[in-house]
Amino acid sequence: MIRTIEWTESGVVMLDQRILPGEETYLTFTDYRDVAEAIRALVIRGAPAIGVAAAMGAALGVKNSNAQTVDDLDAEFRTICDTITGTRPTAVNLFWAIERIRSLYERTKSLGLDAVRQALIAEAQTMHREDIEANKAMGRFGQALFPDEGCILTHCNAGALATAGYGTALGVIRAAVEAGKKIRVFADETRPFLQGARLTAWELAHDGIPVTVITDNMAGYFMKKGEIDGIIVGADRIAANGDVANKIGTYSVAILAREHGIPFWVAAPLSTIDRAMPSGDGIEIEQRNPEEVRKIGDTLIVPENVPVAHPAFDVTPSRYIHAIITDRGVALPPYTESIKKLFQND
Amino acid sequence: MIRTIEWTESGVVMLDQRILPGEETYLTFTDYRDVAEAIRALVIRGAPAIGVAAAMGAALGVKNSNAQTVDDLDAEFRTICDTITGTRPTAVNLFWAIERIRSLYERTKSLGLDAVRQALIAEAQTMHREDIEANKAMGRFGQALFPDEGCILTHCNAGALATAGYGTALGVIRAAVEAGKKIRVFADETRPFLQGARLTAWELAHDGIPVTVITDNMAGYFMKKGEIDGIIVGADRIAANGDVANKIGTYSVAILAREHGIPFWVAAPLSTIDRAMPSGDGIEIEQRNPEEVRKIGDTLIVPENVPVAHPAFDVTPSRYIHAIITDRGVALPPYTESIKKLFQND
Repeated sequence: MIRTIEWTESGVVMLDQRILPGEETYLTFTDYRDVAEAIRALVIRGAPAIGVAAAMGAALGVKNSNAQTVDDLDAEFRTICDTITGTRPTAVNLFWAIERIRSLYERTKSLGLDAVRQALIAEAQTMHREDIEANKAMGRFGQALFPDEGCILTHCNAGALATAGYGTALGVIRAAVEAGKKIRVFADETRPFLQGARLTAWELAHDGIPVTVITDNMAGYFMKKGEIDGIIVGADRIAANGDVANKIGTYSVAILAREHGIPFWVAAPLSTIDRAMPSGDGIEIEQRNPEEVRKIGDTLIVPENVPVAHPAFDVTPSRYIHAIITDRGVALPPYTESIKKLFQND
Repeated sequence: MIRTIEWTESGVVMLDQRILPGEETYLTFTDYRDVAEAIRALVIRGAPAIGVAAAMGAALGVKNSNAQTVDDLDAEFRTICDTITGTRPTAVNLFWAIERIRSLYERTKSLGLDAVRQALIAEAQTMHREDIEANKAMGRFGQALFPDEGCILTHCNAGALATAGYGTALGVIRAAVEAGKKIRVFADETRPFLQGARLTAWELAHDGIPVTVITDNMAGYFMKKGEIDGIIVGADRIAANGDVANKIGTYSVAILAREHGIPFWVAAPLSTIDRAMPSGDGIEIEQRNPEEVRKIGDTLIVPENVPVAHPAFDVTPSRYIHAIITDRGVALPPYTESIKKLFQND
């Protein structure tokens, strides 16, 4: 089992995803500010994993607070939440997780400081466990869409490393393999952070699932050759109409998929669906530091005096998406209705 | 003026494109086998530049031969030609250039060894000069297609560095700027060799033309935002029906262009058109060493035990192409007819 993030007695432990696959290093954070910085710096990434990290960061902040009463803690708790939510704007799980922690805080306040601390720590661990369960459920629902044998393309890393474990898109692939299907994977390397080349390749190889890495610009070539039977990706935020914000390049893959008549699936838990966002047009796209594009390791790949753009996400309109696989079942077009239905038992 | 390749008394001099933009180093080759290896190893790349390098390499081989008579030289000349044409299978200019040199060899044989040597050296230099002239002509024809003001996306490097000078696609951009048009450029970084990030950015910055580098997977994002007014690329081989083999990823850009209603232009000299090739289906796609994808500088980006694919080119069917800009004018669809017409005065 890949341990992406864990709550331990000594702090929040994360596998440092910036240096995989070269090094497998675990970092222990004892200050919530360092957890926030780890989210911002991509030590941990992937919407569901960011959600869990946010919850654990908030619990850590409350655990380590010097406050003597809940009233003393109130202002500090707001700062903790604001610091964590201020790290990355696109993945909605970050805000969802902090909202869930905040709501629990309000509900347990009257029980005193110790009760709040215990409740938040327990909740963060529950969210970790629930995320894995959600991924397993997505796997069960989603794998039924896969052929018995074939090659699936994925973009970025929506795997164990992007979640508490098992993965969303890669969870569906894992479930298909566990169900006896003969699945091979093409992984887009996913510039600039190379989540596909570094992380998806690493974790699929770890599980013995056949994977071949391609540069992002090779996807169309292999689709045209008929070598790709389906595409599955994760999501950072899904609007109420089914538009999907995900790693930059997802939109291009979706257009290529339609041009070649290949199904394009999205796998994400309900916590990634932002029902307050009517369409993808309103989703804020994080613009990251151009230096993350300009250099790979110590190698300068763009001249110093040339500007570089670095939008970290794009939005795929729902019309390109064949199905959205969630932990409550598969939503099909039209998504406004099918997504509403998923939440009916809430 | 950027000096991509030059014939000098001391040998064939090339700017080493593998280490730009970090280092500007010129290598001098005195053995035709080293010229062939330089072509294979991407010291020089770009179809027209490869053509010139091939001609200069053949001339160098003949110049340095120990043969005493043309008859002595015959077998060695065949080896020289085979060594050079065996380096890269996709760019047709390589074969075109060697065929032109071979034909001249046959025509001058009867004049004796010295005459052959002089003729071949002169021809290689003529081809260098003609290539620049062809690029200037393409620039004049092509720039008329550009808006007076706008942003043009290009993929790979079809610039001075891909030719004897001025460039094909970048030549059209240069000509538009010289004609007073306000052109900004987006350059796809073009994985894995990063010709866009390293070479296109370097040479446009050198000329003061505004350029922004993006990763290949960002092109769709900027098209959707309405920030791209046209796309221009070079070509490694154009079939008789107008199908275009070019750097891997070109096909995907062409599909994205059509999806967004953006014109997609190809600029290439007549020497890139392979009239013996009825369609792009028959063009051999070079499969390069996966290690060129796996490592960037010293940074390992794909785990050692995971396979990597590395097709270096793809084929864009002519139906995605709005115009093919050549040194004899602009060919429009249907290309089978318009391409035939370009050659009518041959």
